[in-house]
Amino acid sequence: MIRLLLGVSCLAAASIAVSAENALPSWQDGAAKQAIVAFVEDVTDEESKSFVPAAERIAVFDNDGTLWSEQPIYFQVAFMLDRLKAVAPEHPEWKDNPAYQALVARDEAQLAKLGMKPVLELLAVANSGMTTDEYGAALKTWLKTAVHPRFRRPYTDLVYKPMQELLAYLREHGFQTWIVSGGGIEFMRAWTEDAYGIPPQQVVGSIAETKFELQGGGPVLVREPNVAFVDDGAGKPVGIYRAIGRRPIAAFGNSDGDLQMLQYAAVGEGSRLAVLIHHDDMEREYAYDRDSRIGRLDKALDEAKARKWVVVSMKDDWKRIYPWEPGQ
Amino acid sequence: MIRLLLGVSCLAAASIAVSAENALPSWQDGAAKQAIVAFVEDVTDEESKSFVPAAERIAVFDNDGTLWSEQPIYFQVAFMLDRLKAVAPEHPEWKDNPAYQALVARDEAQLAKLGMKPVLELLAVANSGMTTDEYGAALKTWLKTAVHPRFRRPYTDLVYKPMQELLAYLREHGFQTWIVSGGGIEFMRAWTEDAYGIPPQQVVGSIAETKFELQGGGPVLVREPNVAFVDDGAGKPVGIYRAIGRRPIAAFGNSDGDLQMLQYAAVGEGSRLAVLIHHDDMEREYAYDRDSRIGRLDKALDEAKARKWVVVSMKDDWKRIYPWEPGQ
Repeated sequence: MIRLLLGVSCLAAASIAVSAENALPSWQDGAAKQAIVAFVEDVTDEESKSFVPAAERIAVFDNDGTLWSEQPIYFQVAFMLDRLKAVAPEHPEWKDNPAYQALVARDEAQLAKLGMKPVLELLAVANSGMTTDEYGAALKTWLKTAVHPRFRRPYTDLVYKPMQELLAYLREHGFQTWIVSGGGIEFMRAWTEDAYGIPPQQVVGSIAETKFELQGGGPVLVREPNVAFVDDGAGKPVGIYRAIGRRPIAAFGNSDGDLQMLQYAAVGEGSRLAVLIHHDDMEREYAYDRDSRIGRLDKALDEAKARKWVVVSMKDDWKRIYPWEPGQ
Repeated sequence: MIRLLLGVSCLAAASIAVSAENALPSWQDGAAKQAIVAFVEDVTDEESKSFVPAAERIAVFDNDGTLWSEQPIYFQVAFMLDRLKAVAPEHPEWKDNPAYQALVARDEAQLAKLGMKPVLELLAVANSGMTTDEYGAALKTWLKTAVHPRFRRPYTDLVYKPMQELLAYLREHGFQTWIVSGGGIEFMRAWTEDAYGIPPQQVVGSIAETKFELQGGGPVLVREPNVAFVDDGAGKPVGIYRAIGRRPIAAFGNSDGDLQMLQYAAVGEGSRLAVLIHHDDMEREYAYDRDSRIGRLDKALDEAKARKWVVVSMKDDWKRIYPWEPGQ
């Protein structure tokens, strides 16, 4: 706190190094952490030719697989499937729907045969038709009650402690921290402020169409089944442009869906930071990359190597993964 | 500044009243100002049952006609027409285009006969095909050189001084101030920070499609001729939901295009503020409402009367309109 009052730029480099040590206790003192700290010191040092004014210190973070886990299925899909079951009594016609039958029976072979289209259509219907306030309330209830199949804990317990520290460290150094994720914007907004200190207006995500209506109780927005914007792949720089209007100088991702965002932030003049979180810790979390159905990391890993981006090994660079693990 | 450090909530009501007097010197001490100040005191008073935490103090402002002038044509249209002339040499085929001929000749009768569609198509082509950075640079140049036909000053001189004061007053009281306008998002972002203290990420507007590309010089976004989102009318609450994710408690507009935004912010429980700026000062600015082609104020004026919203008379409530007028 004292550091904040004094202003970071007044501090000597040695002191900043100590503060990074204190601010990032869950990080091993390896190359990844050193590269991140060096970047932050560089762009916040008024004497450096790489100095960036605070208003332009924009850092963007993918969410699934970058700030919290995403296996064995995206957690939002777990929520949407639970919604499907919850509203099924209102849809007797689903009993004859092959996609519904396969989903309820968890019939992977049949689901693979049907393809994604009928499943997505069904999920879209189950997750629309209510006001945004009603949807938000259903979300909050689910977050309190649902548990992850492997860790037997609420999904919001599966955020990465080292990334929480990193977000706070960047904000202490004048950065704005934004989420730019393929996930649904309202799904994330329900919990990102508590989990990461990121308020709703700094969450960029995929967007369902909504429609303004004057209902009995007042004006509302009603969720529609169609998608207005997909914030993934080449859509991420577009989402950034629409919501932020400034090009980030730092970007964090973990999959090929983050490649264009990392390029947009990191390819160009000046001091930039691009970071990939590599899931290589089967014991404490999961290990997957080039062949994974969820969070595939293939092209972006090649690009990271070619461009010397920072690749964080969850196994080697993180002393712990989750906040509830004992400290070391 | 001292007030900010002490925290507004510690101050006695009398002191706040004095601060409002100091903060809003261009406002007459009439019913409009009193209603605004009473609202701000109410929602920032921790003892009040209407108290609103700072994070939820969202105030949204229309731009054209609410924060700056919009006559005789929307200033953005003036820019787009100038763009049309600037790029015409690259489009020899326009010589035979009736809409182009009518625009260049300012042939109002012919334009009325053609309708808006061919004009908008032409403007879309003239304002696309370049990167967002190139477009932003063209905008900055135009803002420096273009002059308003009546006032013979740069367009950014035509911001309303009382609204600048109001924006600053709200921010001093912990509000976030947002623009939510039908104007193009990048057109506004080029100057709203200087003019209003509103940074790019707090500007919500209409959005052109953009496409991510890796060009020789690096990754860019290229403007496309089609529109992705129209932030007007019933689109404004949708734009607010997408960008902010919280329902505003205060909204300011001047036309029927702001009606749904005002309803969304102001109809409901708790202390809310809805304000219409009424253009009734032909001498110092312009006078228009129910029959105007630009900034028509008809249904929203009826609704304001029915719901007892605040209607600001520019003639009677504002001591001055523009920052460069002599103070009184």
